[in-house]
Amino acid sequence: MTDTTGLKNRGKTKADTEDRRKAAEEFTGTKLDSISRYGFEPELASKNIENMIGTVQIPLGYAGPVAIHGEYADGEYLIPLATTEGALVASISRGMSVINQSGGVRTAVLADAMTRAPVLKVNGIKHSKKVIAWIDSHKKEIDEAVAGTTSHGKLIDIEPFPNGNSLYLRFSFSTGDAMGMNMATLASEAVCRLIEKETGATMVSVSGNMCSDKKPAAINMISGRGKTVLAEATIPRDIVESKLHASPESIVDTNIRKNLVGSSMSGTLGANAHAANMVAALFIATGQDPAQVVGGSMTITTCEANDDGLYICVRMPTVEVGTVGGGTSLPCQSEALKMIDCQGSGKAKKLAEIVASTVLAGELSTLAAQAAGQLGQAHKALGR
Amino acid sequence: MTDTTGLKNRGKTKADTEDRRKAAEEFTGTKLDSISRYGFEPELASKNIENMIGTVQIPLGYAGPVAIHGEYADGEYLIPLATTEGALVASISRGMSVINQSGGVRTAVLADAMTRAPVLKVNGIKHSKKVIAWIDSHKKEIDEAVAGTTSHGKLIDIEPFPNGNSLYLRFSFSTGDAMGMNMATLASEAVCRLIEKETGATMVSVSGNMCSDKKPAAINMISGRGKTVLAEATIPRDIVESKLHASPESIVDTNIRKNLVGSSMSGTLGANAHAANMVAALFIATGQDPAQVVGGSMTITTCEANDDGLYICVRMPTVEVGTVGGGTSLPCQSEALKMIDCQGSGKAKKLAEIVASTVLAGELSTLAAQAAGQLGQAHKALGR
Amino acid sequence: MTDTTGLKNRGKTKADTEDRRKAAEEFTGTKLDSISRYGFEPELASKNIENMIGTVQIPLGYAGPVAIHGEYADGEYLIPLATTEGALVASISRGMSVINQSGGVRTAVLADAMTRAPVLKVNGIKHSKKVIAWIDSHKKEIDEAVAGTTSHGKLIDIEPFPNGNSLYLRFSFSTGDAMGMNMATLASEAVCRLIEKETGATMVSVSGNMCSDKKPAAINMISGRGKTVLAEATIPRDIVESKLHASPESIVDTNIRKNLVGSSMSGTLGANAHAANMVAALFIATGQDPAQVVGGSMTITTCEANDDGLYICVRMPTVEVGTVGGGTSLPCQSEALKMIDCQGSGKAKKLAEIVASTVLAGELSTLAAQAAGQLGQAHKALGR
Amino acid sequence: MTDTTGLKNRGKTKADTEDRRKAAEEFTGTKLDSISRYGFEPELASKNIENMIGTVQIPLGYAGPVAIHGEYADGEYLIPLATTEGALVASISRGMSVINQSGGVRTAVLADAMTRAPVLKVNGIKHSKKVIAWIDSHKKEIDEAVAGTTSHGKLIDIEPFPNGNSLYLRFSFSTGDAMGMNMATLASEAVCRLIEKETGATMVSVSGNMCSDKKPAAINMISGRGKTVLAEATIPRDIVESKLHASPESIVDTNIRKNLVGSSMSGTLGANAHAANMVAALFIATGQDPAQVVGGSMTITTCEANDDGLYICVRMPTVEVGTVGGGTSLPCQSEALKMIDCQGSGKAKKLAEIVASTVLAGELSTLAAQAAGQLGQAHKALGR
Repeated sequence: MTDTTGLKNRGKTKADTEDRRKAAEEFTGTKLDSISRYGFEPELASKNIENMIGTVQIPLGYAGPVAIHGEYADGEYLIPLATTEGALVASISRGMSVINQSGGVRTAVLADAMTRAPVLKVNGIKHSKKVIAWIDSHKKEIDEAVAGTTSHGKLIDIEPFPNGNSLYLRFSFSTGDAMGMNMATLASEAVCRLIEKETGATMVSVSGNMCSDKKPAAINMISGRGKTVLAEATIPRDIVESKLHASPESIVDTNIRKNLVGSSMSGTLGANAHAANMVAALFIATGQDPAQVVGGSMTITTCEANDDGLYICVRMPTVEVGTVGGGTSLPCQSEALKMIDCQGSGKAKKLAEIVASTVLAGELSTLAAQAAGQLGQAHKALGR
Repeated sequence: MTDTTGLKNRGKTKADTEDRRKAAEEFTGTKLDSISRYGFEPELASKNIENMIGTVQIPLGYAGPVAIHGEYADGEYLIPLATTEGALVASISRGMSVINQSGGVRTAVLADAMTRAPVLKVNGIKHSKKVIAWIDSHKKEIDEAVAGTTSHGKLIDIEPFPNGNSLYLRFSFSTGDAMGMNMATLASEAVCRLIEKETGATMVSVSGNMCSDKKPAAINMISGRGKTVLAEATIPRDIVESKLHASPESIVDTNIRKNLVGSSMSGTLGANAHAANMVAALFIATGQDPAQVVGGSMTITTCEANDDGLYICVRMPTVEVGTVGGGTSLPCQSEALKMIDCQGSGKAKKLAEIVASTVLAGELSTLAAQAAGQLGQAHKALGR
Repeated sequence: MTDTTGLKNRGKTKADTEDRRKAAEEFTGTKLDSISRYGFEPELASKNIENMIGTVQIPLGYAGPVAIHGEYADGEYLIPLATTEGALVASISRGMSVINQSGGVRTAVLADAMTRAPVLKVNGIKHSKKVIAWIDSHKKEIDEAVAGTTSHGKLIDIEPFPNGNSLYLRFSFSTGDAMGMNMATLASEAVCRLIEKETGATMVSVSGNMCSDKKPAAINMISGRGKTVLAEATIPRDIVESKLHASPESIVDTNIRKNLVGSSMSGTLGANAHAANMVAALFIATGQDPAQVVGGSMTITTCEANDDGLYICVRMPTVEVGTVGGGTSLPCQSEALKMIDCQGSGKAKKLAEIVASTVLAGELSTLAAQAAGQLGQAHKALGR
Repeated sequence: MTDTTGLKNRGKTKADTEDRRKAAEEFTGTKLDSISRYGFEPELASKNIENMIGTVQIPLGYAGPVAIHGEYADGEYLIPLATTEGALVASISRGMSVINQSGGVRTAVLADAMTRAPVLKVNGIKHSKKVIAWIDSHKKEIDEAVAGTTSHGKLIDIEPFPNGNSLYLRFSFSTGDAMGMNMATLASEAVCRLIEKETGATMVSVSGNMCSDKKPAAINMISGRGKTVLAEATIPRDIVESKLHASPESIVDTNIRKNLVGSSMSGTLGANAHAANMVAALFIATGQDPAQVVGGSMTITTCEANDDGLYICVRMPTVEVGTVGGGTSLPCQSEALKMIDCQGSGKAKKLAEIVASTVLAGELSTLAAQAAGQLGQAHKALGR
C-alpha cells in the first residue's frame, strides 16, 4: 500500500539505507558522498534513528589527560571531545594541564535520580488530596507497577504538586547506569495507569514539564536531575601567575562580574562562563543525548582567592548521563567511552565526575583568559 | 623542548592525527578503530578542533519533506537530522506529514542580531554615565573600530547596563550569514579597547554574561539573540482526528497543563515539549554549535482549538545559526546544509525558518501523542 | 554622652514619641499633625518600630462577605483590606459576590513550613560531605539546640546544598501560629553554632538566600515557604454571563494569553493577574509583613471552561502569615484579625485560606473585567 | 432596589463609613474601635478605597538623616518608614549613620518609563507583521490617541512581541510625577482601540503580563519599569571596622555567598539581602502602591573591598513611584512626603533616589551585621 522504496523506505538494512540516501540525493539534488562514508552497519543504529541515510562525522579530539580524585573517577583520564569550535579543546586542555600541576580535580556525586512528572486531570483540590493519600498508602502496589516495567529502575520518591484540576507527580528513580529517561517514563506511566484505575484521575500527559527534560527549569537546578556533581581544584598562586598569566584575584573578579553579577542581571539559570561547551563536546563524543546539554548549562562556577592561591568549583545539579543505552553502544561513541573507562555497567557516576572535571577545566581556562586580557590591558596602561 | 609526538603532537596533518590516535590508544588501552575510520582530510577540520584523532559518527536520517511557506524558506524540504534517540526522527516526520496535508508551515524571521556584552570596570555611577555619554557621541569612531575587525558585521546597537563599578555593554550586530559569535566578540573587544583609551574604563571580560551565550538567560528570551523566528500551522479537525488520533481540544489541553502551567510551576524559561531535541538534531547535522541548543530550548509553544481545527505556533527568540563558518564547511555538514539549500551566503535566515518549522513539527507530534494517550485511556474507560 | 533628646531620642514613651516628632518637624520644616493623631499608646508598638513619631493611616474597607469551605476557614467572612488603590476593594467584592452565588470557595493548606537557610564556609567538597554526615547522625543534639531557642518551633528538615567552599542548609520549621521568621532564624543559628563547634565549618550568614525571605525565588515557588495554599471555585455559566458579562471561554482565553503565555514570555515567577494586590491589602490590614507580598506575587492562576461553567483556581506556594507576633497585636490590626476570627493561637492556617480565597476573588473579577472589555469590543463591532 | 444601608452601603461620607463600620461590627461580632479612630474625613479617601470603615494605623518612624548627593535628591533627608518589624528602622538608621560619616550616598536615575502591555488577538504571524507595520507608519495617529487620554503622559515607545495568534505590545510612557499605571493603561487602551479599528486585531486584555505590574518579571529587571535607579557609597576601612564591627572583606564575602551565589542557586530574580523591607516601609509611609514592593525586590546589591575600604551599590531597575496621585495626597502620607520634600510636581525622580538610598543603607547594615556575626564567632574561636 504505502510506498516502501525511496524516501518512503522504512527499512533498517544497509541496502535500505542506501536506497533512502539515493532517494534523498535525488529529492534534494545533492550528492551525499561524505554522509554515506561511515564505518559501521546501519543495523547497529536501528534503535537510535529512523530514515537513516548515513552519518555526520564530528571531529573528535582529546583534552588532558586530567588527574581526577573522585569517588568514582580516580586516576588520569584522556577526555574525548567532539566539537567544531576551534580553540575549545586547546582551552580545556590548558585548564587540565594547570589543574594537574596543582594536584588534580576533586569531585563528588551528591545525588542521583532521574525524574519524570506526569500531569493528571483531577476534579479539583479535594480529589488531588485523595489521590495523594492513595499514593501514600499504596507504596507496595506502586513499587510492583514499577517493577512490571523495569528491573534496573527503582522508585525513590513521588513528589506531588497539586494545582487546581491538575495534579503533577514528580517521580524520582534510581536508574542504574542508564541515563534513565525511558525507564522513568515507562515506570511513571505504569504507576499512573494504576492511579487512574484506583482514583479516577486521568493522565493528561506522561510529562507535565515538572520533570523537566531538556528545558531550562529551576526545579532541576534546585532539586537536581540525573547526577548532581561538584568538582573543585586549588591552583597555587605561582601556577596561576606563570601558567595562566593572571592573578587569583583577577580571576575571582572576572567570575564575580561576569558569572555572578552578569548572570543575575540577565536573568540566567546558573552562573558560568561556557559550561555547555564542555558538556556538548563530551556528550556528543560519548553518545549522550545532546539536547540534555540544557541541563549542564545551569552550572554554577565559584572562585575564591586565598592564601593557597585560587580555589575554583563547579556545581552541576543536572548531569543527565548514562553508560549503557542511548547512543553509548554505537561504535565511535563506545570507543570514546572506553577511552575513559566508562563503558557499560557501574560507570555512570564515574562519567558524571568526568563531565564535571572537564567543565571545571574549561571554566578555569576561559576565566583566566579573560582575566589575562584584563591584566594585559592594565600592563599596557602601566607601561605608557 | 616540549615533546611534539604522541599525545603532545599538535600537528594538523593526517599523519599527526594518526600519531596522536595511536598515543591515545596506548594511553587509554583502547582500540579506536571506528573513530579512525572517517572520510575526509583532517586538515579540513584544522580550524574546528585541536588534538584531532578522528571523528565520532552520529547517525543521520531525515524527516519530511515538509512544506514551508516562509519569507526565506519557501518550498519542500527534506530535513537532515543527526540523533541517537530512537523515534525522534519518526515523530518529527509524522508531524511534518500532518502539516503538509494541512497546507504547510508558515514562518517569519522577526529579528536578527548577534550579541556580545563585555563588562567594564568603572569608578562608579558617575563614571558609567560618562562612558555612556562618550559612546552616544562617538558613533562614527565606534563604527570604525568595528569596521577594523570585520567586513561582514555591522553594529546595530549598544545597550548599556550600569551596575555600581561595573558597566555592561550589550552590543548587537548584524553578522550576515555567519552565526557571528566570533565576529561579535572581536568587534566588541575592539570597541572596548577604544572606550578604555578614551574613558579610563577597563574591560574586565569581553563577555559579561549579559550577552548571553550558551546559558539559559531571560534576556535572550525577551530581547532575542541570533534569529527570532515564528512558525505556525493550522491543522483541520478531521486531520487531527484521523492522523493524530486526538482532538484539537485534547492537544490544547495537553499544551496548557504541560507546556504552560507545568513550565511555570517548574520555573522554566520557555514553554515547550522538547524543542531542544529538534534543535540538537538539526544543529549537529548542519555544523551548528550544539551548545547553542540552550538558546533553542527557550521556545514557547502555543495551541488553540477553533473552527478551523488546531492552530499551533512556536516562538523561538534565540536561534543562533549560520550557513558559513563554524562547522558548516565540514564535508558531511556541508552536504546536510545542501540538502536544504542552506549552504553559503544568503541562507542563514532560511535555515532559521527551517529550524523553527522542524521544531513545530516535533512539538505537534509529541503533544498529539501525549493527548492521544489520554484519549486512548478515556476510550478504554468508556469501553468498560 | 549621646544626645537623648530630639532626633536622637531613643525612648519608647508617648513623651519620647512627641519629642521626636517635634524634632522631626523642626528638621524637615513640616507639620506632622495627621501623623501625630493616632489612637494607641506608642509603648504598644515598642517591639514593632524604633524612632516612632506617630502612624500612617491606611484606609481600611472590606470585601465580601465571602463563603469559604476550607479545612480551617469554614463560613462567611468579611475581609478587611487596607489599600489606597481605588476600585480594588470593589473589584474583589464583586468577585466574592459571584463566588458566593456559585457555592463559595473551596480551599486547602497543602504544606506549612517556615524556612531559613544559613550559609557556612567549609574547606571544600569533602568537608561539606562530613558536615552533612554529622547532621544526619546527630538529629537529637540538633533538636535540642532548636528546643533551646523556641518552645513553639519544631524542626522538620534540614536540606543541604553544598557548593564549593560554601554549604547552604535550608532549615524547615513548623512554627505554630507565628509567621515564624524570627523563630526560624534563632533556631537555625543555634544549630549552626553547634555545627561550627563540632565540624569546623563557619557560619558566614544566618541567611544564605536559599531561604528565601522577601525575594522572588523559584525555590519558594517550587518547594513552598510558609503555607502552600490552594483555593478554587466553579462559577456556573449563567452566572458568568449575567454577573461578569463574559463567557467562561473568554475568561479562559484571557487567562491563557495573559497569565500563562504573557508571564512565560516576560520571564515571570508565577502567573497571575494581580495577586500581590490582594495579598498587600490583606497583609497590611492584619499586621502581616508587607515585604512578604513578594511571596504572594508568585501565585499561579488557572481557569477551565467546562460543562459546569468556569473553573478557576489559585495556587499560592508562599503564603507567609501568622496570627500571633509581628504586627498582629497592634490595635487596628488586631481588630482586623478578629473580623475574620483569626486572632491568636490556632488560626494561622485559617488566615492562609482566607488569603487565598481573597486572591481568588480578585483574580476572577479582574480576568472577567478584561474578558468583558474584549467582549464589549466584540459587541460594538457586531453592532456596527 | 439594592439595600443601601449596613454592609451594602456604598456611600463615601463619614456617616456612611460609620454605618458600614457598625454593620461590620455586627456581622463579625467585633468591636472596631481602633479602626474607627482616624484623623481625616473619609471623603478624602473616596478615590482610594471602597467600603471604607476606618483606617489601619501603621507605626511610623524615621531613619537618618541621610546625606544624599543625587541628581534630584541633594541634601540631608529624614526618611519616614512605616513598619511593624522591630529593628528594621534602627538597622537602616545605623547604615545611614555610617554612610553619612563616609561622605553620603551617590545616586542616579538611569531611566524612567511606565509600561503597559496589552495583548491582542491576531490571525497569525502575517497579521502580526501587518499590525506592527501599521504601528510603525502611524506614529502621529497613535500619539493623538494617547493625547486624547492624558495631558501628562507621553508615549516613548511601543515594543512588539508577536507570538502566534497573540501580539503583545509593550508601551512605554513618561508619566511625569505620577507612578503612571492608570495613565499608561488608559493611553494603551486608547491606542489599542485605534489599532483594532484599523487592523482588525482584537484586544484580549489591556494587560498581557509583558508589562509587568506587581509580578516578579525578568523583563522588568532587564528593561526596567518605573525608575531605574542606582545608589552607591564608599565606606572607609576604619569606619567599617569601628562602626560596623566587620572588615570590608568579610562584608564582600557575605555578599558573594549570600546575595550572589545563594540567590543564583535559589533561582531568584535579583540579588539582595532584604531590599523589599526598605521599599515596603517607605512605600507605605508615602502612599505608594505596596504591591509594587515586588518590583523593588529585584534589586541587585554588589560590594567590593579595595584600598578605599568598602564600595557598595544597589541597582534597582523597577522603582515604581509617584509624588502625585494614588495614596500620596492622603493626610499622613502627604506629610511623610513633605518630610523628604517629595510632595507634588517635579519630585518623582527625587523620591526614587531616596528609595534607593534607603535600600542601600539597609543592605549595608544587614550585610555588616551578618558579617560581624561571622567575625564574632571567629573571635570566640580565637579566644579559646
